[in-house]
Amino acid sequence: MQHYSYEELRTFTCNIFQKMGCSNSDAAIATEVLLSADLRGIDSHGIARLSGYVRLWEAKRINTAPQLKIIHESPSTAVVDADAALGLVAAPFAMKIAIEKAKQVGTGWVAVENSNHYGIAGYHAMMALEHDMIGISMTNASPLVAPTFSTERLLGTNPISIAIPAGKESPFVLDMATTTAANGKLEILQRKNMNAPLGWVQDKNGVTTTNANAAKEGGALLPLGGDREHGSHKGYGLGAVVDIFSAVLSGANYGPWVPPFVAFLKPSENSVGKGLGHFFGAMRIDAFRDGAEFKTHMDNWIRTFKNAKVSEGNKRVIIPGEPEMEMQQERLKNGIPLLEPVVNDLKELAQKFSLKF
Amino acid sequence: MQHYSYEELRTFTCNIFQKMGCSNSDAAIATEVLLSADLRGIDSHGIARLSGYVRLWEAKRINTAPQLKIIHESPSTAVVDADAALGLVAAPFAMKIAIEKAKQVGTGWVAVENSNHYGIAGYHAMMALEHDMIGISMTNASPLVAPTFSTERLLGTNPISIAIPAGKESPFVLDMATTTAANGKLEILQRKNMNAPLGWVQDKNGVTTTNANAAKEGGALLPLGGDREHGSHKGYGLGAVVDIFSAVLSGANYGPWVPPFVAFLKPSENSVGKGLGHFFGAMRIDAFRDGAEFKTHMDNWIRTFKNAKVSEGNKRVIIPGEPEMEMQQERLKNGIPLLEPVVNDLKELAQKFSLKF
Repeated sequence: MQHYSYEELRTFTCNIFQKMGCSNSDAAIATEVLLSADLRGIDSHGIARLSGYVRLWEAKRINTAPQLKIIHESPSTAVVDADAALGLVAAPFAMKIAIEKAKQVGTGWVAVENSNHYGIAGYHAMMALEHDMIGISMTNASPLVAPTFSTERLLGTNPISIAIPAGKESPFVLDMATTTAANGKLEILQRKNMNAPLGWVQDKNGVTTTNANAAKEGGALLPLGGDREHGSHKGYGLGAVVDIFSAVLSGANYGPWVPPFVAFLKPSENSVGKGLGHFFGAMRIDAFRDGAEFKTHMDNWIRTFKNAKVSEGNKRVIIPGEPEMEMQQERLKNGIPLLEPVVNDLKELAQKFSLKF
Repeated sequence: MQHYSYEELRTFTCNIFQKMGCSNSDAAIATEVLLSADLRGIDSHGIARLSGYVRLWEAKRINTAPQLKIIHESPSTAVVDADAALGLVAAPFAMKIAIEKAKQVGTGWVAVENSNHYGIAGYHAMMALEHDMIGISMTNASPLVAPTFSTERLLGTNPISIAIPAGKESPFVLDMATTTAANGKLEILQRKNMNAPLGWVQDKNGVTTTNANAAKEGGALLPLGGDREHGSHKGYGLGAVVDIFSAVLSGANYGPWVPPFVAFLKPSENSVGKGLGHFFGAMRIDAFRDGAEFKTHMDNWIRTFKNAKVSEGNKRVIIPGEPEMEMQQERLKNGIPLLEPVVNDLKELAQKFSLKF
């Protein structure tokens, strides 16, 4: 597997976004968001998707010169119409508003309509950390997941990220799909022609299966829990909340109407809203408690869990966000490995835009 | 199984709380919260726990004449010191503040320290519904759950409830423990001497087991997901967020320091905060979008999911909160069934306080 330096990928990605018509600042932020996935080891959401964004732009589903605007607000809330912008641009725009509101009144909550896929949820939640705030980020996504007891794909993998600052310890960063397994993990199994564990996917009849391709053959991904006996109604409930907060609250499409990420599938004609939706929150720590006091206890919380007794065969208890942070340090140092199909994809993109890769 | 009318149980429970020294209004609200569990079919959290609350009061861990007060606030946030009140009283007090803040600035967020167990999470979240707000409620609880890869019980079953108003449809009410199965479900298996499904509990070595008593024998409940391969790190992450929001943000005890519900176990001597903690939120729908418009789409969301194709062997796709609402209608009409040990427990309580049951 070839390794590329972050700088190299950053320059290339930024050039592509500029060629698509993004302003310099939009291209820079979109690049930072997209590549944060590669740095953190969530390879499915990073540069491997760049050509997907290009195809959406070619299909005129992404507006690279958008007029983002607040269409409704209160002291602690806002709704943003993203004007079909890249989600990679719309999400930081909205999160900044949430942070500004939190500065004013303690917390800020922003729902976004008319957007596109926004990269990893974690990037946006983590924007709050440097302001000594808790950050929250969620988005709906193309329908791939069946609710418990159903054979219909009605929800996306609808991720939730919650980032919480600490003192001397690294921040706590939960970033999770509300399914048993993220779609990216299934794609890896598909490429390797391997089986999936039971509880990840169901076939077109709603029967759990080890066929990693089942979702592409009329089946669906399963909500966290896998089946009713193991709490899949909870994963379904959480995915539903993400859908409702992101889209019913903002005016975006929800459920089966969420536009697909792949450009060759047309969005639903009888849409129920605009684009797809996100939801963000920022809560100022000192709107609740002295910041230093909070951080002392947060450090204690993290150390208590880090030092918990480990069960046999395992190395340590992991704090959410820890492996991603370690991966980022490693990849900034040693480069980002890209699979051959991804490299070929980027070479094609380079050619299309008369760039080098 | 004997059935009791809601009125009968209400009068009795209210009398008990008054005998414990609660004011009439505190006794009334504590009763309403406690019995909402019985009405909604969450029998483990209802009147079956009344004697547990009495024992906590006898152990001087519950203050029935508390001075609840706001100790920190901003326009959209507050922290409440519950003065060791019944959680059944502290939680509605805090939720009302969240609702008032939401009226003023769009949303309200209240963390509570120095509290006790608060009944079902759903009651408090649902308080927001009549104000056309989304309600959020969570609490930490006695440590019973091991984080992924650990043998130590560091988290409670830490429930999350989110209540969302609809128009003509019934509201969406998610109310879930962040474990695969609630402790109450294990207690039922224990009483019937039955095995638990794999993925619910682990033994003292951290190995998943069908022994429903494992948690009492040095084992632990498992986070939603059950094991790493099925996403237990997500259930652990969600339980952790509930713990941090409820306690690290408020000043309550977190992790292994959360005081046990049972009075015969002493709270940790080197506590890291006061009592246990809760976290509440209220978001005004019209701080985001016209209320009627929201409700039209929420109804459409609910109908779309209700009418989704059902997999073989199942009856229908369930909207979170639907079964509980149906149970409530049925029990208000036909009475609430109580198991013999619960009836005997209540008869003993009656005797202790010179009441009739």
